[in-house]
Amino acid sequence: MADASDEHRLNPRLRRSPRPVIDPAALARSIRAGDRVALAQGITLIESEKPEDWERGAELLQALRSEDPQPVLRVGISGTPGVGKSTFVEAIGNWLIDRGQRVAVLAVDPSSERTGGSILGDKTRMERLAGRPEAFIRPSPTAGYLGGVARASRETAQLCAAAGYDCILVETVGVGQSETAVAQLVDCFLLLLQPGAGDELQGIKRGIVEMADILLINKAEGENRPAAERARSEYRNALHLFPPQPGGWSPPVALVSARTGEGIEESWSLVEDFHRQASETGNFVLKRREQARYWLDAQLREAIYRRFARTGTGRDRFEELEAAVLAGELATRLAVMRLLNERET
Amino acid sequence: MADASDEHRLNPRLRRSPRPVIDPAALARSIRAGDRVALAQGITLIESEKPEDWERGAELLQALRSEDPQPVLRVGISGTPGVGKSTFVEAIGNWLIDRGQRVAVLAVDPSSERTGGSILGDKTRMERLAGRPEAFIRPSPTAGYLGGVARASRETAQLCAAAGYDCILVETVGVGQSETAVAQLVDCFLLLLQPGAGDELQGIKRGIVEMADILLINKAEGENRPAAERARSEYRNALHLFPPQPGGWSPPVALVSARTGEGIEESWSLVEDFHRQASETGNFVLKRREQARYWLDAQLREAIYRRFARTGTGRDRFEELEAAVLAGELATRLAVMRLLNERET
Repeated sequence: MADASDEHRLNPRLRRSPRPVIDPAALARSIRAGDRVALAQGITLIESEKPEDWERGAELLQALRSEDPQPVLRVGISGTPGVGKSTFVEAIGNWLIDRGQRVAVLAVDPSSERTGGSILGDKTRMERLAGRPEAFIRPSPTAGYLGGVARASRETAQLCAAAGYDCILVETVGVGQSETAVAQLVDCFLLLLQPGAGDELQGIKRGIVEMADILLINKAEGENRPAAERARSEYRNALHLFPPQPGGWSPPVALVSARTGEGIEESWSLVEDFHRQASETGNFVLKRREQARYWLDAQLREAIYRRFARTGTGRDRFEELEAAVLAGELATRLAVMRLLNERET
Repeated sequence: MADASDEHRLNPRLRRSPRPVIDPAALARSIRAGDRVALAQGITLIESEKPEDWERGAELLQALRSEDPQPVLRVGISGTPGVGKSTFVEAIGNWLIDRGQRVAVLAVDPSSERTGGSILGDKTRMERLAGRPEAFIRPSPTAGYLGGVARASRETAQLCAAAGYDCILVETVGVGQSETAVAQLVDCFLLLLQPGAGDELQGIKRGIVEMADILLINKAEGENRPAAERARSEYRNALHLFPPQPGGWSPPVALVSARTGEGIEESWSLVEDFHRQASETGNFVLKRREQARYWLDAQLREAIYRRFARTGTGRDRFEELEAAVLAGELATRLAVMRLLNERET
């Protein structure tokens, strides 16, 4: 017969949270002082969707809001699985640390529930970086609703900036619908490609190539080199056929070998060129402002929707009405009205 | 001194709506019978955001929901201002009518409040089409909130399908943020380009070229012809560097002269090829299902948000909090919590 403690262990509803309640103000002080454990705790707090954590997370973010006029650069790194994103992050992360920088690496992967998370799976490929005290690596939060993962990653970047990291690398898989949200949380968007130009883009989200600020042909080493050079010139020719960027930035295409390290320095100098140009034209600040607006709107809408979902009609009823809409039996508008009206009664 | 009738005329709050209340079921019957006035009234009804119209609009859409297993093809036509979209619509619309089709033309342009609407301004360029009984031309609704215009256009397309039109052309300006919504309301997306490859894309939304199912270089006549041919081969080379489409469809690039009519027949046969391939692979039905899901989710979220906005904190308070967020004084999450909490009290 199971005793009371067994029941508590087996029934998640009865199980108490083992985490101690942390005072957001104290946590903020520890994060600012560079305490890695506090940083990890803070991130866990802001990733949580529980209402009580949500409020404390807001206080933490409020305590850590930046008064620094020089924001910490956030660089997005995207590409299909197998393109070498983790090897690239390992290479550029170590290169930056060797030059005196402290680097935070985050992953945005809403599919991580299924795949185990790209960074977690790739940690062996980031072995050296993961062991360095100047690096902080954080895998993607467990898969949540669309946009929620990106929201958490944006707030995580704010925590890392407050913790004194000089640069934040955001690794993302360009296959999902969250790419728009990811583009809204970085300053500069790198797309990694493979030497067989275009061949590897199967499954990547349409529109993502046009969103890139810098294109890098990875694996440009050894016998791949001629193919990589062909890919570079093909992409250079192709890019002028696509809409230009604000401020007249033309996305450059460069070769890199994350494995040998060749081209890593040039890759970073392209990021610096982009950063300088964006700062000089005012686009850097403009983009940050637009991103702040985007997130306020997105988070407000999400919060209102979630409150409705919590108190409103159950999931079963939604699915019933959705099935009727998909079968052509019910007008979309009528389904929406019913869901809203049932909520009111 | 102004008398009472003057006051009613001058003060929109006192002015009664001149429209008679129409029974949705009767309206639906007239629309199905091909009554153009009823169709126009139905569209006005579904474009309205007034709560009482909203309900009757839902009833109308429910009455007109399709039980037809063969859905009416909706073709999106996008491109920068000046590329010749209206001339193209005039040419292809007349060509289709000459072959026995009935054609509806809709415009999606959330900026129409400012510009007066692309189709309204271009009506002179659609003079012949506008005069034909087999054509129905409807300008974009007056600018509303983002996505609302596209929602109305999707429902308008449903009304036109019920009214017996064989094909629906949706003209859109590819400069706004509503392009994602527009892609969610058509079956096939055409992008019109100009001979000077890439030169005219200034101001177009990034990502839109990758979204196109068919690319047409317009104005490929006379002295423009060699430049148009160069553009065609450049785009053909470029497109294989971008993510492929579901089902393996490779977006073709063709030349057209909307002015002379050359290439109009070929353009439409590309649309038919796309339609056939999508039907055979099942992608047509799949896309429609995904679109139905998208709109149910989008409309539900919008309705919940609007109800909140109606009863919640006023616009002034939102702007006050937004300014604090943009100034870096208030964490986004805290602003969201305040807006929600103030609503509850």
